[in-house]
Amino acid sequence: MKRIKVIVPVNTSIWNESILEIFEKNKDSDTLIDIVNITKGPEAIEQHYDEVWSELFTLREAEKAEVEGYDGIIIYCFGDPAVRAAKEKLRIPVVGIMEASIHFASLLGKRFSIITTRNEGKFATEDLLKLYGFEKKCVSIRALGIEVLNLVDRSRLRKAALETCRLAVEDDGADVLVFGCGSILGLREEISEILKLPVIEPGITALKICEDLIDVGLTHSKRAYPMPLNIKRQI
Amino acid sequence: MKRIKVIVPVNTSIWNESILEIFEKNKDSDTLIDIVNITKGPEAIEQHYDEVWSELFTLREAEKAEVEGYDGIIIYCFGDPAVRAAKEKLRIPVVGIMEASIHFASLLGKRFSIITTRNEGKFATEDLLKLYGFEKKCVSIRALGIEVLNLVDRSRLRKAALETCRLAVEDDGADVLVFGCGSILGLREEISEILKLPVIEPGITALKICEDLIDVGLTHSKRAYPMPLNIKRQI
Amino acid sequence: MKRIKVIVPVNTSIWNESILEIFEKNKDSDTLIDIVNITKGPEAIEQHYDEVWSELFTLREAEKAEVEGYDGIIIYCFGDPAVRAAKEKLRIPVVGIMEASIHFASLLGKRFSIITTRNEGKFATEDLLKLYGFEKKCVSIRALGIEVLNLVDRSRLRKAALETCRLAVEDDGADVLVFGCGSILGLREEISEILKLPVIEPGITALKICEDLIDVGLTHSKRAYPMPLNIKRQI
Amino acid sequence: MKRIKVIVPVNTSIWNESILEIFEKNKDSDTLIDIVNITKGPEAIEQHYDEVWSELFTLREAEKAEVEGYDGIIIYCFGDPAVRAAKEKLRIPVVGIMEASIHFASLLGKRFSIITTRNEGKFATEDLLKLYGFEKKCVSIRALGIEVLNLVDRSRLRKAALETCRLAVEDDGADVLVFGCGSILGLREEISEILKLPVIEPGITALKICEDLIDVGLTHSKRAYPMPLNIKRQI
Amino acid sequence: MKRIKVIVPVNTSIWNESILEIFEKNKDSDTLIDIVNITKGPEAIEQHYDEVWSELFTLREAEKAEVEGYDGIIIYCFGDPAVRAAKEKLRIPVVGIMEASIHFASLLGKRFSIITTRNEGKFATEDLLKLYGFEKKCVSIRALGIEVLNLVDRSRLRKAALETCRLAVEDDGADVLVFGCGSILGLREEISEILKLPVIEPGITALKICEDLIDVGLTHSKRAYPMPLNIKRQI
Amino acid sequence: MKRIKVIVPVNTSIWNESILEIFEKNKDSDTLIDIVNITKGPEAIEQHYDEVWSELFTLREAEKAEVEGYDGIIIYCFGDPAVRAAKEKLRIPVVGIMEASIHFASLLGKRFSIITTRNEGKFATEDLLKLYGFEKKCVSIRALGIEVLNLVDRSRLRKAALETCRLAVEDDGADVLVFGCGSILGLREEISEILKLPVIEPGITALKICEDLIDVGLTHSKRAYPMPLNIKRQI
Repeated sequence: MKRIKVIVPVNTSIWNESILEIFEKNKDSDTLIDIVNITKGPEAIEQHYDEVWSELFTLREAEKAEVEGYDGIIIYCFGDPAVRAAKEKLRIPVVGIMEASIHFASLLGKRFSIITTRNEGKFATEDLLKLYGFEKKCVSIRALGIEVLNLVDRSRLRKAALETCRLAVEDDGADVLVFGCGSILGLREEISEILKLPVIEPGITALKICEDLIDVGLTHSKRAYPMPLNIKRQI
Repeated sequence: MKRIKVIVPVNTSIWNESILEIFEKNKDSDTLIDIVNITKGPEAIEQHYDEVWSELFTLREAEKAEVEGYDGIIIYCFGDPAVRAAKEKLRIPVVGIMEASIHFASLLGKRFSIITTRNEGKFATEDLLKLYGFEKKCVSIRALGIEVLNLVDRSRLRKAALETCRLAVEDDGADVLVFGCGSILGLREEISEILKLPVIEPGITALKICEDLIDVGLTHSKRAYPMPLNIKRQI
Repeated sequence: MKRIKVIVPVNTSIWNESILEIFEKNKDSDTLIDIVNITKGPEAIEQHYDEVWSELFTLREAEKAEVEGYDGIIIYCFGDPAVRAAKEKLRIPVVGIMEASIHFASLLGKRFSIITTRNEGKFATEDLLKLYGFEKKCVSIRALGIEVLNLVDRSRLRKAALETCRLAVEDDGADVLVFGCGSILGLREEISEILKLPVIEPGITALKICEDLIDVGLTHSKRAYPMPLNIKRQI
Repeated sequence: MKRIKVIVPVNTSIWNESILEIFEKNKDSDTLIDIVNITKGPEAIEQHYDEVWSELFTLREAEKAEVEGYDGIIIYCFGDPAVRAAKEKLRIPVVGIMEASIHFASLLGKRFSIITTRNEGKFATEDLLKLYGFEKKCVSIRALGIEVLNLVDRSRLRKAALETCRLAVEDDGADVLVFGCGSILGLREEISEILKLPVIEPGITALKICEDLIDVGLTHSKRAYPMPLNIKRQI
Repeated sequence: MKRIKVIVPVNTSIWNESILEIFEKNKDSDTLIDIVNITKGPEAIEQHYDEVWSELFTLREAEKAEVEGYDGIIIYCFGDPAVRAAKEKLRIPVVGIMEASIHFASLLGKRFSIITTRNEGKFATEDLLKLYGFEKKCVSIRALGIEVLNLVDRSRLRKAALETCRLAVEDDGADVLVFGCGSILGLREEISEILKLPVIEPGITALKICEDLIDVGLTHSKRAYPMPLNIKRQI
Repeated sequence: MKRIKVIVPVNTSIWNESILEIFEKNKDSDTLIDIVNITKGPEAIEQHYDEVWSELFTLREAEKAEVEGYDGIIIYCFGDPAVRAAKEKLRIPVVGIMEASIHFASLLGKRFSIITTRNEGKFATEDLLKLYGFEKKCVSIRALGIEVLNLVDRSRLRKAALETCRLAVEDDGADVLVFGCGSILGLREEISEILKLPVIEPGITALKICEDLIDVGLTHSKRAYPMPLNIKRQI
């Protein structure tokens, strides 16, 4: 059995049900999923500022997972908040949904496009592309022009997503699309069908990678993510 | 059920049993593995010259897979021979063991090293790193100094691998190791234990990626790998 | 005297006469040109799939050249099929028309554009740009939208080429143009005149480089293209 | 008059006096310096883990500065914690000591080396080099092998620094040295004298850049660092 | 006191007064500015050709500065003519206005645009971006379409600059603008106000960097800019 | 007939005879070679400083060539002094020996090494590698430790070259060697024989490229090297 803890690193549970549904549908039969939120921090992560507000609480939640006996952790936000820090502290697999999704995109095509929420959020995504070394493979980051909390309006989301995805393909030459926010859900199959190319929901790819790592007994390198020193830290 | 055809693209079956053993151990319970070779081409793939000798026959074998009803294909040689061509012709997932392994390495650390067979084989590996866009993440390609067909001498292989892996870590600063040949088998766990870092057998990662793609209904983008034209071709 | 074998790596001789004409016009007085085709393989090379169909037969034809006493080989297809493999096996100069043309383009300007046949063929060209390290210098690959075998319709070719070249200059800022297919012939001077910039037919540049190497006694480095091992290979 | 708030983003004031001394010595006559710490968070910042522990409290301290009437802020840790987030929230100049120092290093030479504290801290520095686009100009990151809190042992620091700097110059070819931690102080002139090259204390460069920006009326672009949205955030 | 010699490397003094005005306004109170021209060479620097005409005379003028007792030199042309050579010969800080301005632009945003005079002058600017390693951070070089000597027509300049700057922001996504010629003066504040982003006059940034270096006792690395040999040279 | 003017851009004729000998041996039968020097400028070009001293006089000499009826120009110094400026002013082919040699090296192998004179001269070579976009292909620049004017001591040169070339191959993995100074002559064949790899004298490659361009009617793009404006210039 593979026990995976999914941390949705915002101070609201409004997305949990939809996420769970997707995860239940795509998980291996022997995988057990728990979804939690943070009880402090921001209600949504729109840019660097919110990441800083989220990361410490997310990290604390991740640290608890090892004690709780989980086999792996998914941090469910496209900004991969606290992922590097959690990898330093923990030995079980920690998977960010951004890193997982762009690795899949890289395997499936030659130039992917990321469909994000607002233009103001592009910078955090660009920074991760640099950190992960995928700047060249990402041909564009296109924004829907919708704030994260407004993504609950599914018909507005669907309309904007259809149009934005089409532009990514036609104007930017994307051959794979990645949704650049964990709250863009339920559109993968329709858009894939219409535009005739792979469309990636990042959460699903994180799930598969996390399961893979647990299955084959791999985890992140402690040479790349060394254990923190024992010094005083106060919250 | 996921039916996967594994093509070992050489004109010998001496590796099939070991490969099957690894695959049986790491596959999902609902995965069915068939391993085949090519009946022409080279006995081993050491460098570009052998790749050209292998690719046409490998491609033909891959093409048959879709007709035979397979859900996915793994081309089991670190040179990823005919992988791009097969992706053009086929709609089911085609996974090369090199591409799969370096994507995992990239997820698990920051600088990986590839342990290959002979110095003369480094150039083909370097070329793939360029094609896949991973030159910067690979800090070194180190050769065992053993021809592929001599890898059957397991004690010689083990000795060379231990020493070469150690140098990759100590001198090149690798934090993840990837075996750069599908015939370097059975050493992953020991070396991982000794050197305290993830060690990747490329076949296992290709297996997991292939299963993932089948599970979630993704395949390579036909926009990146367009269907070939209908023209005359003779063999 | 410099004896050069030109291999047109397709299973048709329809282009040989035009190629010979260009070569006769641009060769040194002491150069002797022989043009051959392959008797198997594809009728045209449009993308990766066709390259795999061509390469083994092209390689075999190249191998014969050294025995036949040639001083150099030109592989006459912009995909440079089997060029790396042939360099491994042979000691006489082997020149691909793509590699030769982009080196000239790089010398003559700062940003070149490649005019290719179909959009679906761009990927093979992009891959070579990565292998040769010229991604940054190539500002665009523009397609005529014509299949290779239809290039025999010279008036359609001329019309498409004039328009496509103009776009490469005006929209992409190209300062040198390279025809990205060996069958785009006879337009170099007219387009150069109209657009006021160097226009390169790749075959001519391969010819000059091949002659240069023979003249000054240089050939590709056997340290970069090591001799293949003696193992069993079957066709 | 230029009022600058220096935030030393750790939960200890042991470095403040030394920092103030350096700043008083190098500031413009009309600059007024205030140094503060954070009252929660970590005692030292050694790697990503500590950065996450520091950033939220550092950000809150930075936000107060604008209200307090400061003209500029320096975040005094080589990890530039919360610098991007603070630039999003604030309109007055926010300067990280890492970003300032490598820009000076880039102006003064062609390949700089960063002298950091422990090997485990290199990864955070490497990540910033990628974010700031200076990977190629930095030829090495060399560690003293001393934990931050042990840098108070000045004779141990001096000995290690002399040796490490020498290796950066002789083995890595550095022509400029940057101290990669705000607590490596008081050695700049001696090492510069011995090794005959510029040696940069990052705090000094941040001070000069901050003063320059205030003097000429420039600040970071709000197009690159957009104002955060008004959503609920809880600490 | 900081004595700085500003060399305007053209054979005309028509710009000196405007430059002096800007410098007087932005300099530290203890800085003393002298502005000189070269008495041979070109009247304006438009492209590489003019740079070669200017550099020897500019270098000679720079060499005199050290004898004359100056503490630093600014070479006031965006082509940074003779800057590398002067750094080799001299030990006092030598600052080019191009290098200084792009380092400031890099600190203030993520993608800057350079507003230059004519399209024909872009190549020299591109070359410097490569030499300084800032190709990726510069998203565009846009030309006003005005020859340097015609920049005296301030209303034509203002009109073209407003329009060109707007395009750099809207079409290229620039978040910082740099004027790519020392004679584009007096527009910084207005355009910054209109387009809501930092606008950089390169001369001002060179002035601040030069003052900074003198203030803190830094100069370019003699390991990167080694002293020329004593050989015969004739003018 | 192809009339080529070779400008040796130093104020001494001591190298002309050796250069002429090499050129006579490697030129086409219908090529006519004239070698000239500059009558002012430096006696040798060791680094940037000397380049500035040479370039204006070299440019003037190049400009005369078009009037004198030459079909092409070779600027015979590895710093390619005034090459870009001359290409702007002239329509006949202008070839620098550095640019020609590295393009040949790129065609013949995968990682070349440049053997230069003194460590202090490496920076100018590095800058050209950046301008020409070949940084990645050059694995090392190794210096002989001999000043240009001392290269007349052929036995000292030979001894240093043998040792330095060997290190480039064994320690840096070079597969092609390029002599990085036009005065390293007469060693090509011996070192090529000993080290079993192509060794390039840059002058020969410039000669062949210049002849090629004249033969096929190509010259540098005037879109990349636009004609200078008509403004006042004084010498």
